[in-house]
Amino acid sequence: MKILLIGATGLLGTAVKKELESDHEIIQAARHDADVEVDITKPASIKQMFEKVGKVDAVISATGDAHFGPLEEITPELNEVTIESKLKGQVNLILLGTDYVNDNGSFTLTTGIIMDEPIYQGASSAMANGAVKAFVKSAAAEAPRGIRMNSVSPTVFQESSEDLRAFFPGFEPVPLSKVATVFRKSVEGVQSGQSYEIY
Amino acid sequence: MKILLIGATGLLGTAVKKELESDHEIIQAARHDADVEVDITKPASIKQMFEKVGKVDAVISATGDAHFGPLEEITPELNEVTIESKLKGQVNLILLGTDYVNDNGSFTLTTGIIMDEPIYQGASSAMANGAVKAFVKSAAAEAPRGIRMNSVSPTVFQESSEDLRAFFPGFEPVPLSKVATVFRKSVEGVQSGQSYEIY
Repeated sequence: MKILLIGATGLLGTAVKKELESDHEIIQAARHDADVEVDITKPASIKQMFEKVGKVDAVISATGDAHFGPLEEITPELNEVTIESKLKGQVNLILLGTDYVNDNGSFTLTTGIIMDEPIYQGASSAMANGAVKAFVKSAAAEAPRGIRMNSVSPTVFQESSEDLRAFFPGFEPVPLSKVATVFRKSVEGVQSGQSYEIY
Repeated sequence: MKILLIGATGLLGTAVKKELESDHEIIQAARHDADVEVDITKPASIKQMFEKVGKVDAVISATGDAHFGPLEEITPELNEVTIESKLKGQVNLILLGTDYVNDNGSFTLTTGIIMDEPIYQGASSAMANGAVKAFVKSAAAEAPRGIRMNSVSPTVFQESSEDLRAFFPGFEPVPLSKVATVFRKSVEGVQSGQSYEIY
């Protein structure tokens, strides 16, 4: 398959690429240093990316910025960072990219455990995760031409920084290689509308 | 208790008011024809509302516009209607209003069944529901001064229009009076971080 991987240069994207590249053609998209540059916070940039890449069999998003901070310090403006990137950035991949996905292709977006198990400073990011999960489930039920849509919700990674892991006390970290296999399940499998939880 | 009810003039808001007004002081907020006017899509309007009303014991949101339309016709611009109102409008009530809620007070926001059980044309609204549910759950875990935060997720109402009910085939409609009692549970009860599902 021809797979467009957005966020290909990040920690998760790199693991997904490693998992899939021996069996598929991976087109790497990222803000910089990739086959195609994209800023998912800008619909025009998403459109340009799809126009440049053309038809693909699968779109994977392994990206999305979010604001982390104590609830009492989250302003509407800081929350906007999350809405523009992790939320709208991912949702708009489906809204703007469906025409570029071949029949029976797929979208796989990324959410995360904190929508289900809150962590300190995680409210804004949890919001985006919940939005993406619900949008994918609902959009999948209306997807045209056999296109499937799923989201993957991982817990914290073993490979995440020590500082980040400290925000997940008692959460058992998973190796990125395990998370990456779930993206394979979404891309090569038959299910749609799923939230694959790796908790 | 002193309860600020946003969306007080709508179908749901009217039912919530009827449920609670004999036991509490209800301050009705709505875009027009209410004790205090508010446009939840504008943070400045939300701030003005709270400044005008002052301290309350509970904030209830029974409002939030959303775009309904077939997935293939949802543009980022149309999706913005939902994001500005049902999503950010409700989230910003917590971000901007927490300082105006007395110790051990509460927020109760409104989501809906379609985040869990998709309906045709519902993807944008489902997205907002999922966002609000996850935000409330996470924010509740960090809420200061014993403030509780819950969301209520009703199915379609018996009192909804026939046209609207047609979008929910096989969904058993519930009477608004039953939905309203769940808002009482959230306001007068002890739980926090809950998504009360009335399916």
